[in-house]
Amino acid sequence: MKITEPTFIINKNRVINNIDKMIARAELFDADLRPHFKTHQSVEIGELFRERGITKITVSSVSMAEYFATNGWADITIAFPVNLLQIKQINTLAKNIKLNILVDSVFSAQSLSNFITRSLGVFIKVDTGYHRSGISFDDPEIEKIINEIKQNRFLKLKGFLTHAGNTYNAKGKNEIEKIVADSYSQLKVLKSKYPNTIISWGDTPSCSIAENLDEFDELRPGNFVYYDVMQYHIGSCKMEEIAVVVACPVVSVYPEREEMIIYGGGIHFSKEFIAADNDFKLYGYVVKLENGNWETPIAGAYVSSISQEHGIIKMPNNQITDFKPGDLIGVLPIHSCLTANLLKGNSINR
Amino acid sequence: MKITEPTFIINKNRVINNIDKMIARAELFDADLRPHFKTHQSVEIGELFRERGITKITVSSVSMAEYFATNGWADITIAFPVNLLQIKQINTLAKNIKLNILVDSVFSAQSLSNFITRSLGVFIKVDTGYHRSGISFDDPEIEKIINEIKQNRFLKLKGFLTHAGNTYNAKGKNEIEKIVADSYSQLKVLKSKYPNTIISWGDTPSCSIAENLDEFDELRPGNFVYYDVMQYHIGSCKMEEIAVVVACPVVSVYPEREEMIIYGGGIHFSKEFIAADNDFKLYGYVVKLENGNWETPIAGAYVSSISQEHGIIKMPNNQITDFKPGDLIGVLPIHSCLTANLLKGNSINR
Repeated sequence: MKITEPTFIINKNRVINNIDKMIARAELFDADLRPHFKTHQSVEIGELFRERGITKITVSSVSMAEYFATNGWADITIAFPVNLLQIKQINTLAKNIKLNILVDSVFSAQSLSNFITRSLGVFIKVDTGYHRSGISFDDPEIEKIINEIKQNRFLKLKGFLTHAGNTYNAKGKNEIEKIVADSYSQLKVLKSKYPNTIISWGDTPSCSIAENLDEFDELRPGNFVYYDVMQYHIGSCKMEEIAVVVACPVVSVYPEREEMIIYGGGIHFSKEFIAADNDFKLYGYVVKLENGNWETPIAGAYVSSISQEHGIIKMPNNQITDFKPGDLIGVLPIHSCLTANLLKGNSINR
Repeated sequence: MKITEPTFIINKNRVINNIDKMIARAELFDADLRPHFKTHQSVEIGELFRERGITKITVSSVSMAEYFATNGWADITIAFPVNLLQIKQINTLAKNIKLNILVDSVFSAQSLSNFITRSLGVFIKVDTGYHRSGISFDDPEIEKIINEIKQNRFLKLKGFLTHAGNTYNAKGKNEIEKIVADSYSQLKVLKSKYPNTIISWGDTPSCSIAENLDEFDELRPGNFVYYDVMQYHIGSCKMEEIAVVVACPVVSVYPEREEMIIYGGGIHFSKEFIAADNDFKLYGYVVKLENGNWETPIAGAYVSSISQEHGIIKMPNNQITDFKPGDLIGVLPIHSCLTANLLKGNSINR
């Protein structure tokens, strides 16, 4: 297939290595691996997990659960505070598969209890420091939520789920270990107070490199399947573990500015960037592509700016002269989840 | 239709007012209006332009040109440096419609000349200060590009095109006027040197509020059809001219934190934000929705953070108690072009 537009290239061998490594990590810690499929949203990539014995998955929306249920996945956690407006779809899903959802308030638990007509697993979303969704481990409301769940014959308390998204702001292993230990000290209080519950833990940085995840019953990382420049910066992966690249047509080259313009912008990558103090913004690393394969980034080259369809690449003069309009160049994305989502219709497995 | 997921709501009356106002502006300056359709990418919104006599349009990619050509638009400028990898599609398009493209180097002009088999209008992209794509007005390469064009029987020099995207960094009318005057002082040199060429000018801020655009032959604004929070901040529009809102389900409410979580994140809005000095980031204003209608933003409320599917809204305690999980709330997007693109499959005209 000739590439003529921004195209997401998936290196299948790297994906398989990333999956195998995470399966081994979960075994090491004696935890269930319930990978998050929001990163790839792909039936084909899902099959690579299934071939390796994975049967339980995580998604982030009801529609994503419907998509994977249609494709043969029968045990799904929607790791998102329950959207009460979709109760009808939730009941339908729960009729057909083993479904788990999240609640973090008495109000949501009560509403769910009023409208649920099928068996449904419920996790209480606990906020251990990320401060997005969730309830604090010592909030007395947890007891009330559990009482609501217990009074309903369809609802079953599964346990406590957290997403330590604060590891995304961590720099290196020590900071990640600190977040893990701190979160666990909160979650273990709940686990000992409520027997027969599990602790579900997610986030690619800690699942990739923390020394000890023994205390968790279930791991839900997602991004690791592809990794990306952000994970590389956090320290979660090596450069050669990044399994995806976006092939972009070069449309203009300005050697005197040490810049080129590519066809590849916000509608392909999203606008995620990594910022440094001095107003420096990194929107992606740049690699040479040969038949869809790539090695390490070109030294000193990076995507410095992105608009709707354009990207600007900065590249030292001694390298930029290798490129001309009509060439393809590779960009390692900052955030592979968003990029994969945007390029769903235009991707290649190889 | 019951809204259960993040949904893009278009207020048709506001869209029509925005279109009518821009048509009147173009008439005032005796310029052709060639609106940029990358903002809406919608056949239905396109019809509103057609009903008002617009026949020429601008797009930002070959695939977008194909889409609108299929839907009866027969005079299209692809305002993007020519992607030589799509020469086959360009030839096919040029066979069926009046097509214009951009070049900004001798190399691209030569390559185009080698492969073009149909009549094609060519604009030279001039960089008047934005420093994305384009060539400087005093670069001797312009003469060489023009010679390449003249030697080919299919290529016709249309004129000089610029996108003063630097108006997006302007604050208010005076800064915008300065950019217009400065750009024109460059472009007029080219127009006088090369007779029978036109100057094509685009960008919503200047087309919306500059006092004098008399010197330009063609205007290509796009965003004005919807406007957004960024345009409001620049000073291009009034709050009540913003014609789109995203209806988002409320999934968690934390009165003590003065925050709520909505179903609505990076895959719906993109991650565009407006930054202020003190680490403050604005990802959208918040409005109450009543039957898909909205008024001015809730005072003190705004989207403060966005991840893949979640948004966090900050809202003062006296307002937040009006909301509970299962409600819908409206978010005025920072950048309507990116939001419209992401929610193409989930939008409502009303």
